[in-house]
Amino acid sequence: MKKLLLFCAAALLFTAAGAQDQKRPDPQPPIDEKELFRVGMAGFTFASFKGDLDRALNIMKRCDVHYLCIKDFHLPYNSTDEQIAAFHAKLKSYGVTGYAVGPIYMSKEEEADRYFEYAKRVGVKLIVGVPTHELLPYIDKKVKEYDMKYAIHLHGPDLPDRYPDADDIWAHVKDLDPRIGMCLDLGHNLRNGKDPVVALKKYHSRVFDIHLKDATAATKAGYSVEVGRGLVDFPGLVKTLRKVKYDGKVSLEHERDMSNPEMGIAESIGYFRGVIRATKK
Amino acid sequence: MKKLLLFCAAALLFTAAGAQDQKRPDPQPPIDEKELFRVGMAGFTFASFKGDLDRALNIMKRCDVHYLCIKDFHLPYNSTDEQIAAFHAKLKSYGVTGYAVGPIYMSKEEEADRYFEYAKRVGVKLIVGVPTHELLPYIDKKVKEYDMKYAIHLHGPDLPDRYPDADDIWAHVKDLDPRIGMCLDLGHNLRNGKDPVVALKKYHSRVFDIHLKDATAATKAGYSVEVGRGLVDFPGLVKTLRKVKYDGKVSLEHERDMSNPEMGIAESIGYFRGVIRATKK
Repeated sequence: MKKLLLFCAAALLFTAAGAQDQKRPDPQPPIDEKELFRVGMAGFTFASFKGDLDRALNIMKRCDVHYLCIKDFHLPYNSTDEQIAAFHAKLKSYGVTGYAVGPIYMSKEEEADRYFEYAKRVGVKLIVGVPTHELLPYIDKKVKEYDMKYAIHLHGPDLPDRYPDADDIWAHVKDLDPRIGMCLDLGHNLRNGKDPVVALKKYHSRVFDIHLKDATAATKAGYSVEVGRGLVDFPGLVKTLRKVKYDGKVSLEHERDMSNPEMGIAESIGYFRGVIRATKK
Repeated sequence: MKKLLLFCAAALLFTAAGAQDQKRPDPQPPIDEKELFRVGMAGFTFASFKGDLDRALNIMKRCDVHYLCIKDFHLPYNSTDEQIAAFHAKLKSYGVTGYAVGPIYMSKEEEADRYFEYAKRVGVKLIVGVPTHELLPYIDKKVKEYDMKYAIHLHGPDLPDRYPDADDIWAHVKDLDPRIGMCLDLGHNLRNGKDPVVALKKYHSRVFDIHLKDATAATKAGYSVEVGRGLVDFPGLVKTLRKVKYDGKVSLEHERDMSNPEMGIAESIGYFRGVIRATKK
């Protein structure tokens, strides 16, 4: 009798779910779910309202983006394990996974110690970092010790001693542990006069993260705009992502109207997904 | 002396403008500026905040959209010529042109008289209308009298006596004046089980306006979602727009989260422009 009841309950549930599907079919899953790479979000996008994690996560939910690179203003370096667990639980309630931490600036060995330990406690295997040149030999030891990837963020022409483009990072890391590579910031690479698609082709073996961004010129005068309003070759980028089998995140770092970024973020994600869709074979 | 001063002032202005360009290069113009068709906005998108024209125009400005199909809640049918002039001036201050009026429902000859006269006073050459079948012979006279195009809006399976899809409109208008055609609503056509891209291929000679819209299913159960989250084949659409040399507007009629539509609108416009960009030869 109990079995029969259970069977009937299951059958009714199944029918109800079926009827609902019939009534309101779901939207399609994001187009990048069928790619090796995934669309993500760089936490820095939300720097203007650091204290309001719910606003950030609501934006991600409305844009159907499920991967976040965690900034310390959302999860401080001194967070307890309980606070870290609560943070992950909150992300999960919005369908979001924290996949990396950073960008984090570091210039001393004790800082590197602290941030690698933080990343380990957060439970990610990727740090986006901005180390001084002098610290690189120590980072080389740390990635071995923690078996973690370390993606150096490039900054364009604004901070020339802090890795202006992918060529510069490659020159610094090519003889180091293969777990040290780069976060290819498309806009900043372009602003340093270099095509980010060419950089991806050349250095993909060391590209561990990508900042999705557009810029108005291939010079320092260029500035960050909604994806598609600048000069980055996004169809070429997507085709290259597929060709080199990039399997990391392409995370929007939106740097325009930062106190009111919702529309710019949505337009950028929409544009990039339109390009993904239209370049499929 | 006066001439020299004027010359110097002009030279300084020119140099300042040049320096500014150097400093802050503009974003790229919208990708559809290089197409025969243009991206526009259907006024109905803003139906949830009818009284707030500024909010609507701000959204268009932020999305870089410059063509509006005018709804009567923004410009009532009994507007005076002065009110019409003020309306156009306001649109212009946001870089927007009103290119058509509608959709307008009409079932009596006096109504058709009134709305054609309204369109003439507004200064547009295109009415998006929903006439009863009985009124069609009279509309046939009116388009001749006013030398105006009349695009019948299709409504999908919800209102079967009011033109469910493009096939239905074609059957009703093919023997009428060539100035009577259709506003091809992509989502509603799909919801009636018909591919809107096929419809555009077949009937492009009578397609005078397009409502950019996506839907989750090719059935009545399907509903309107952000462009790219449903089943409409947008790469196929854009390629067909080019192939048939469509030179009208493709106007977003956004029908989701209508009281809070900014993000959905921006995502939809972004997606469509991403597809336009990525399908260019």
